[in-house]
Amino acid sequence: MARVSQEHLDARRRQIVDGARRSFTRGGFHATSMQDILRETGLSAGAVYRYFRSKDEIISAVAEETFAALREAFSTALHEAPLRPLEDVVAGVLGATLVANGTDGPRDGAQAFPQLIIQVWSEALRNEPLSEVLDRGYEGMRTAWRDLITAYQKGGVLRSDVPADDIARVLMAMCQGLLAQQALFGNVTSDVLRNGLRALLTSTPQD
Amino acid sequence: MARVSQEHLDARRRQIVDGARRSFTRGGFHATSMQDILRETGLSAGAVYRYFRSKDEIISAVAEETFAALREAFSTALHEAPLRPLEDVVAGVLGATLVANGTDGPRDGAQAFPQLIIQVWSEALRNEPLSEVLDRGYEGMRTAWRDLITAYQKGGVLRSDVPADDIARVLMAMCQGLLAQQALFGNVTSDVLRNGLRALLTSTPQD
Repeated sequence: MARVSQEHLDARRRQIVDGARRSFTRGGFHATSMQDILRETGLSAGAVYRYFRSKDEIISAVAEETFAALREAFSTALHEAPLRPLEDVVAGVLGATLVANGTDGPRDGAQAFPQLIIQVWSEALRNEPLSEVLDRGYEGMRTAWRDLITAYQKGGVLRSDVPADDIARVLMAMCQGLLAQQALFGNVTSDVLRNGLRALLTSTPQD
Repeated sequence: MARVSQEHLDARRRQIVDGARRSFTRGGFHATSMQDILRETGLSAGAVYRYFRSKDEIISAVAEETFAALREAFSTALHEAPLRPLEDVVAGVLGATLVANGTDGPRDGAQAFPQLIIQVWSEALRNEPLSEVLDRGYEGMRTAWRDLITAYQKGGVLRSDVPADDIARVLMAMCQGLLAQQALFGNVTSDVLRNGLRALLTSTPQD
């Protein structure tokens, strides 16, 4: 077999994962066959099976990339300036996620990526390897959010007598829930989050 | 055909929907066949088809019931006392949702209901009638949340210069996201939401 460069291998793998993501976004994990993926990538079965042994392995790869995109969006939003208004940071994460879809197809582009996330969640309920990818990705995100929250606690913006992890999970939930709303109903922008969260952060204490 | 009472018809319908929900929770929408549902309910095909023409109609009925349970949880949490601490109201909605599962099966009971919700979301992406059930249910919830938020704005707890709808969507998202976390990773309690939201509501303004 002729030697091929790592660059070539990486580009080929990317071609498969990108094509698979487009196929999955259009048709869903269940209805999409390996044949559909081959057609979309324009590659032969032999070329694809050199990288992935099954559709499930491709699904896991797409999920890994989804998390990488989320992490990227998160770290970009995080490192712009220290202790920016918290609603701007969280809205930045959501906004980056909403546009970082890299997909096309018949559906509204802004809904494609959130819809893929919903599919990954649902598929993970019955697909053990995918569930492990999700567990690892979630733990990584949760740690990053917790570090962010700790900085706001040290800076005196958020109270320190509440576990940083609880605040982290609630803010992650806010993003996850708005992604679900965007996938299902559309019409979600990062401004919805920015406005809503600002109102919570500037409420008048009740007790 | 012998005349049967409305009571009998309702009880039979309930038996089918309950059995179907148990089957779906165990096996997922796609892997569950009409045969599985018949076995679970102990009814004949003729008895079931008198109420539902297809598996899709049963899925929609299960989704309708899911929304009814959520609405019930919401209105209970809402009418306990006016302007209770907002974090208690929202934590009450989530808590009622987490326990209002009415399912059994091999999985942890507290995860069964959230997992069914994730499945409904995913299925709605490709199932038009189900998507309409979801649209109607979501609009109903959103109106109820908006009314709640308006009361807190009028009471001076939440600022009035932010659209009530934005705050409503962010708080719904918080619940939806925590349901997703519970479905996927477990370990979510209403205390996580109560603590996290309280921390946001009592933050020190940054600007």
